[in-house]
Amino acid sequence: MSCARPKLISKNNAHRTYYDYQYSEKVTSALMETLDENGVRPVTFNLSFNDENEYRFIHDVHYGGYAGLAIWPEHSGPLIKKMLNSICRERIPTVLYDHFFEDIPIDSVCTDNEDIGFRLADALLQKGCTRLAFVGVEYSENYSSTQARIEGMASATNNTGRSQGNPQIINLSGSKHDIFDINPLLKAMAAPQRPDGLLFTYSGIAKAVLPHLKELGWRIGTDLKIAFVDDNSYREKAGCPVITVEQPAAKVGQEAAKLLLQRIKNPDKPIIRKFIKSSRVTCPP
Amino acid sequence: MSCARPKLISKNNAHRTYYDYQYSEKVTSALMETLDENGVRPVTFNLSFNDENEYRFIHDVHYGGYAGLAIWPEHSGPLIKKMLNSICRERIPTVLYDHFFEDIPIDSVCTDNEDIGFRLADALLQKGCTRLAFVGVEYSENYSSTQARIEGMASATNNTGRSQGNPQIINLSGSKHDIFDINPLLKAMAAPQRPDGLLFTYSGIAKAVLPHLKELGWRIGTDLKIAFVDDNSYREKAGCPVITVEQPAAKVGQEAAKLLLQRIKNPDKPIIRKFIKSSRVTCPP
Repeated sequence: MSCARPKLISKNNAHRTYYDYQYSEKVTSALMETLDENGVRPVTFNLSFNDENEYRFIHDVHYGGYAGLAIWPEHSGPLIKKMLNSICRERIPTVLYDHFFEDIPIDSVCTDNEDIGFRLADALLQKGCTRLAFVGVEYSENYSSTQARIEGMASATNNTGRSQGNPQIINLSGSKHDIFDINPLLKAMAAPQRPDGLLFTYSGIAKAVLPHLKELGWRIGTDLKIAFVDDNSYREKAGCPVITVEQPAAKVGQEAAKLLLQRIKNPDKPIIRKFIKSSRVTCPP
Repeated sequence: MSCARPKLISKNNAHRTYYDYQYSEKVTSALMETLDENGVRPVTFNLSFNDENEYRFIHDVHYGGYAGLAIWPEHSGPLIKKMLNSICRERIPTVLYDHFFEDIPIDSVCTDNEDIGFRLADALLQKGCTRLAFVGVEYSENYSSTQARIEGMASATNNTGRSQGNPQIINLSGSKHDIFDINPLLKAMAAPQRPDGLLFTYSGIAKAVLPHLKELGWRIGTDLKIAFVDDNSYREKAGCPVITVEQPAAKVGQEAAKLLLQRIKNPDKPIIRKFIKSSRVTCPP
């Protein structure tokens, strides 16, 4: 979570410690640099909200002389929505990044996750796959980014006439930090109709799952094809041909800064929700 | 373990409580009936031997007025071999049933387990299977019956020119009473080259494993074919087409009794080791 203020107060490296820290750092760095280049000194916070500190935070922002807010919410629950609605009522210039809410009137910049799902699935189909499965993790089932990637994947499998209709969805149990149990994938591969193409929603799944698939005898890239969103340069470490795409981190940060600067200048302009496409899918030869 | 004595002392139903109790009961009943018909009153014991009670047992048998012994050893370890060698030295008329030792000169009657392995594998191949796997349980890996069935299966897959050479061997973890973990089978089915025919060494494995295979979507008898040694009439309960064979329990018991009666009459005749073939393999239409 970042705040922009006309004068510098402090500057922290606000990256998360999660699997996607490279991505988080790139987005936040690009955001801060763009603000900096435009004469706005950024202050960054990493906060978790509850009912009490939400009120204090909004109070501090409102009376603290900040020009605006750039917010990367981690969740989509009622508490974060309540806070964002308060911010709207207070007319604090705000941009959401890496997240959007259809029902809250705030500018936002987000990766086009539907496009990511479509393009990775399309690459798998172009490589000759006929049965695709989406491999996610239980904790992220209800994330808007996961849902958008699954929708994009379904567009690819339904509309091209090359595949099986809706893709199978396999949810491993685990957290952001670890995959605990790959049994659901093992069961999917042990079924009579099994996938020949797997789309992992993030590189941590590839890291956890690829050794097991190799041990079972799968020649990745030949018998079984793998695609995933790779925000941590796992591609080189995979040791086998994989299809990857990187989220447009720098662009998300830059666009978020631009929208915030515009909103500060013109508080009454219409709400904009931007979805940034990834530049390219990297395929093995 | 059964002893034969000219006069009746007591008669217990000496069946084991294991998965194969129907088989054990049939073998032992047939043995006792045949002895009984020939004027020998049987006494049955279920014993576990250690160094101490082994000596006592042989002493009691030797001085107890028994005409002979019919022994069904459960294991093939050094302790049982030591005891059997003592019995040989004492020249006590003895027959082993459902077990044999190549290196101990005692009459024995056994199911022809190599033939069972061959015929079940052959039935799977005739039904169109091309990749067979033997599914056993860790505890029985070193059993002579398991080894003989695997050898018979290998003869079928190697000699007919229809299959993959030596069959894959999958050992589940478990005991005689329970299968604890079917993960090794799940892994075999999740591999790129997976079996299309499974030979279970006993019906308890079918009971434990079939519900999982059905849940994965396998149509047993169509996509995946199953064969097993069925000594407990599990065939009807399986709820799907299966290939089975029953061990020739009654014949093993009868032949054991006959060999013992012959040995009692003529202690000096040559050693006979009989292998009884099962009558027929039951195939679905």
